Amino acid sequence: MDIAEKIISGDIRSVARLIRDIDDNVPGSREVLKDLYPSTGKAYVVGITGSPGVGKSTLVDQMVTHLRADGKTVGVLAVDPTSPFSGGAILGDRVRMQRHSMDEGVFIRSMATRGYFGGITQSTRSAIDVLDAMGKDCIIVETVGVGQDEIDIVQSADTTIIVLVPGMGDDVQALKAGILEIGNIFVINKADREGADRTVNDIRLMIEMDEKRYKDGWKPPILTAQAVFDKGIIEILDEIDKHRKHLESSAKIQSMRKYEKVRNDLSEMIKDKIIRDVFDEIINSGEFETTLQSIIKGETDPYTACDTIVSKKLKKGAA
Amino acid sequence: MDIAEKIISGDIRSVARLIRDIDDNVPGSREVLKDLYPSTGKAYVVGITGSPGVGKSTLVDQMVTHLRADGKTVGVLAVDPTSPFSGGAILGDRVRMQRHSMDEGVFIRSMATRGYFGGITQSTRSAIDVLDAMGKDCIIVETVGVGQDEIDIVQSADTTIIVLVPGMGDDVQALKAGILEIGNIFVINKADREGADRTVNDIRLMIEMDEKRYKDGWKPPILTAQAVFDKGIIEILDEIDKHRKHLESSAKIQSMRKYEKVRNDLSEMIKDKIIRDVFDEIINSGEFETTLQSIIKGETDPYTACDTIVSKKLKKGAA
Repeated sequence: MDIAEKIISGDIRSVARLIRDIDDNVPGSREVLKDLYPSTGKAYVVGITGSPGVGKSTLVDQMVTHLRADGKTVGVLAVDPTSPFSGGAILGDRVRMQRHSMDEGVFIRSMATRGYFGGITQSTRSAIDVLDAMGKDCIIVETVGVGQDEIDIVQSADTTIIVLVPGMGDDVQALKAGILEIGNIFVINKADREGADRTVNDIRLMIEMDEKRYKDGWKPPILTAQAVFDKGIIEILDEIDKHRKHLESSAKIQSMRKYEKVRNDLSEMIKDKIIRDVFDEIINSGEFETTLQSIIKGETDPYTACDTIVSKKLKKGAA
Repeated sequence: MDIAEKIISGDIRSVARLIRDIDDNVPGSREVLKDLYPSTGKAYVVGITGSPGVGKSTLVDQMVTHLRADGKTVGVLAVDPTSPFSGGAILGDRVRMQRHSMDEGVFIRSMATRGYFGGITQSTRSAIDVLDAMGKDCIIVETVGVGQDEIDIVQSADTTIIVLVPGMGDDVQALKAGILEIGNIFVINKADREGADRTVNDIRLMIEMDEKRYKDGWKPPILTAQAVFDKGIIEILDEIDKHRKHLESSAKIQSMRKYEKVRNDLSEMIKDKIIRDVFDEIINSGEFETTLQSIIKGETDPYTACDTIVSKKLKKGAA
């Protein structure tokens, strides 16, 4: 069996290695992704996002338990934008793995941010394809924060869940306006805290004011939960099912979503590849370092230097 | 006077227009940036980051008031990653402008995330150059969240401040590990809330465990504040001054920082330009849409299609 066949047959070791190779940009991993692509498109992808401290990990952990009890296999990708600094992703993996580590029906992996544009978006998308091809029924992608990369990632999910906590303060107005459009389900976690009702009402009001945005007929429900006590989790899973049925109820929605997914995938991949191919060559040729020194010496400015390097590179061709 | 001269002479209208043009990627704005570059490098840049709800805007607002009382001119760039969805940046601008709107010594602008890789990083860096060239003594760059773009932006500041609030919950461990290395000063805002002492101690512990990371001899202070009551603001400004003196005390630190700043600027600019030039051409040529349709029909997969498009484009040259 080649690697793609092993992955499709569910071999955990091959899956883990491929995801690591994708993350490390190992040559050859791309060829495996090409072979896997026809086997993708079957998993249901749930995106979960929210600020640090809202309890996303606990929520995901409980969701996994319930999904497993229903006999569904689950993949979890935890996207951690802070990890390049600290190796936090690896630590996170270990902590998370414990509870479900003996369960072959669960595959959990943290994705680290790479040091180039869109690296995390690209490697997470590819990892979703891998878990999809290995046959996971449901893939949960958890991201921290409101950065553009993280928004891009959760937006490519079938159902996107925004997790908030009561009493987020003054900035919540701005946050809510921003995330309103990407959330299919809102969850107020730690709902025993003061101000939960107000947060629910604030979000309800904003959704109602913006009804035109939900052209496709789905009005995001607002749920309360206490993930730590396993409260409200079944309701969240029920709403995910409802949203799934909503998406599948119309051929128009389905083809529109397919189009948007492929368009996003392709455009991110192209950008990623352009950067890697052209930028790496500029670095490796030594031209970057030479130019850097001229700017420091005051012989040129970065704007002019950049235009010169890029137009030279693109005229000559990168191949 | 040409535009660059007007900006250097402090003409607010020209500055506002150039920043808008940079944000909208208007041709010609780049040429002005080239002319301005020799006039940059004088302003002191302070980066402020933290999750939504920690009170960054209030903190910045109070800092501006104190800096103005000291006779310093100030520029503020508020980077809002959520704004493409909601126009939140514009709303934010209006709210912020009010208090300092009659003061010609303050220039405040929000930066919106653009729809391409690194767009926000690039346009914010350029806006910093513009405010620097116009003669602002201090430039405060405020970003929301922990996305890679936002981290890149604040990291390019001279002094980076991380704002936290007491009792952030379980995820704070991971967050702290990630932001520890980019923070020169930590501020626990809303310090009257329960758990402030514990948060201070947690951060202190982490800093002490990681002392090897502060090779340059600066140990980040941890301050408490209640921005809304103007408490702790002077202490923050004092620590910024101390950090500045620390950076200026050693020629080695100065040249290392200069090198890193130029290296970051140049590499982000090159990536940004490659994406714009090559990707825009792929879109405009219609090739993107044709390929998209083949993928949807199942004639090819996005990985293969991407490789084909990019290698064709780069071989031919984009010029």
